[in-house]
Amino acid sequence: MRTATELLESYACLTRAAMAETVAGGAPGSYLYELLRDYTDRQGKGLRPGLLLAAAEACGASIRTALPAATALELLHTSFLIHDDVEDHSRLRRGKPTLHELHGVPLAINAGDALANLATQPLMSSAFPRYRSREVLAELRMAIRQTTEGQALELGWRRHTVVDLTEVDYLELVGRKTCWYTTMAPLRIAALLGRWQPASAALDRLGFLAGCAFQIRDDLLDVTPGGQEGKEPHSDIAEGKRTVMLIHLLSVTPPDQRQWIVGYLGKAEHERTQLEQSQLLRMMVEAGSLAYAEQLAEVLGQAARRSFDEAFADLPASAELDSLRALVDYLIDRS
Amino acid sequence: MRTATELLESYACLTRAAMAETVAGGAPGSYLYELLRDYTDRQGKGLRPGLLLAAAEACGASIRTALPAATALELLHTSFLIHDDVEDHSRLRRGKPTLHELHGVPLAINAGDALANLATQPLMSSAFPRYRSREVLAELRMAIRQTTEGQALELGWRRHTVVDLTEVDYLELVGRKTCWYTTMAPLRIAALLGRWQPASAALDRLGFLAGCAFQIRDDLLDVTPGGQEGKEPHSDIAEGKRTVMLIHLLSVTPPDQRQWIVGYLGKAEHERTQLEQSQLLRMMVEAGSLAYAEQLAEVLGQAARRSFDEAFADLPASAELDSLRALVDYLIDRS
Repeated sequence: MRTATELLESYACLTRAAMAETVAGGAPGSYLYELLRDYTDRQGKGLRPGLLLAAAEACGASIRTALPAATALELLHTSFLIHDDVEDHSRLRRGKPTLHELHGVPLAINAGDALANLATQPLMSSAFPRYRSREVLAELRMAIRQTTEGQALELGWRRHTVVDLTEVDYLELVGRKTCWYTTMAPLRIAALLGRWQPASAALDRLGFLAGCAFQIRDDLLDVTPGGQEGKEPHSDIAEGKRTVMLIHLLSVTPPDQRQWIVGYLGKAEHERTQLEQSQLLRMMVEAGSLAYAEQLAEVLGQAARRSFDEAFADLPASAELDSLRALVDYLIDRS
Repeated sequence: MRTATELLESYACLTRAAMAETVAGGAPGSYLYELLRDYTDRQGKGLRPGLLLAAAEACGASIRTALPAATALELLHTSFLIHDDVEDHSRLRRGKPTLHELHGVPLAINAGDALANLATQPLMSSAFPRYRSREVLAELRMAIRQTTEGQALELGWRRHTVVDLTEVDYLELVGRKTCWYTTMAPLRIAALLGRWQPASAALDRLGFLAGCAFQIRDDLLDVTPGGQEGKEPHSDIAEGKRTVMLIHLLSVTPPDQRQWIVGYLGKAEHERTQLEQSQLLRMMVEAGSLAYAEQLAEVLGQAARRSFDEAFADLPASAELDSLRALVDYLIDRS
């Protein structure tokens, strides 16, 4: 059996080729399509299309059947990244300057809009049956809806310095901004396309739990030296993102320290010094917030594995199902 | 027969109610859905859905059949406005502060993304036949593609101080950024939905010509005192927009004046003084650029009227067709 990373790489190769085809042509090149090609060529891990393709194979669909949906999802993800980078004032994406750093905010916003629109084009090809394209589009529309709702929550909390947040608020946020388009939509779309149907409630639960574990690991990687390839280190802390560690810290810290943290979060991003950022990280370590996040990711990951077994209990055993399991494990445990 | 403005108002009333239904619910309210309701509640003239509904009626479709498409188009238009306002640093929209002035750029970008996604929802209702929703979606996808391509051209020209432009470049720009979603898509969608088919080439030509005349009038209104309700006066000049008057001025002005203009356009927007803006406007007046624009709009408008007659020559005469003609005249001649 191939390892999860080998599997991901082979799926990512197929998806990249299909993405390149979608953004190949068109004018104006220098103000639009070259920008899109730059971002779609940058090597991401391809977790979302990889999960969709692996799950589709496990459900008895061919790669050929599932590739248009996987491509649409990854193009959509790329369009989110372009706008996220503007919203978060990020400077680096996948080891290179972000699109708005290179071409200014107006052209970057427009490029994201263009790409979100092009994203669904692979589903319109004559090779993709019409009733399927309608169902897949409905899934993508739902995923975008949930993602923009989650993003609104996150941005709103930051803008209004909302700090009275619990782990439940965090899981609601992540359930929307991350789980839908990262794990739930890929699994649901795969189930639509396959011959064999996983148990739908367990499948949704798997998507939610695995997506939450994934996001918490992502939060942790941001504060791990060398953890987030191609991004600025500690960017979540610099941006004041409501990570699970920050929410934990706010809930356990003594009042005077808490006041300092709220002051830090109330500042504009450029006013937050390196020293303050290090201070906040140290407080997280000392308060056990990192250990708490580790533990929560572990519990959610275990629950995800149980949901996996339940979701796929009635499917025939296959090498494809084993590959999917390996991929979900990889997604949950990424470190 | 009702006047064009009465007709528009009655159509706008229907569209507003359907838009309100689409953005009615959902959480988070204060960071997303209230923002969407604010923008969709602001009274626009409803030219695009009005044109679609009038054309659909002239082609023998009922309002009931065409309203979901008209609503989708207007929601899409509103999502463009949100992002356009960010890209152009506009402060006022329909007499109130723009969304990013009220809530910051990140939440505004996200709201635009959410609205672009919600826009197609009316086409998914069970009342709207499936094959039609696919066709209308394809038209909307094409319109968005053209609009983002046109927007890229306009933003790119401004970012890179491109000044060697002719009227042909202008018409290419407007053909993409304005005509597709303002006039071509409404007419094409109406033809899809109706019992009677207009001549398609003439219909597309009508859309193009009327859209160009409309945009040139829009350029002119920006420099007409009290011309653009609810917007800042002279905002095109302040933003350095490549209007037909500016392109005309650049082509006829003596070298020393031209150098001054290029210098003005090369500055950042906030560096352009009121005095310089007035100076540029005076140069336009003196060079006959406004008169030239008037004349070009007039010629294109007349050509549009001829295409109208050709497009609808085989349709049965009706009060609905007369209403459509009145509406197209209104669109072309707006002043």
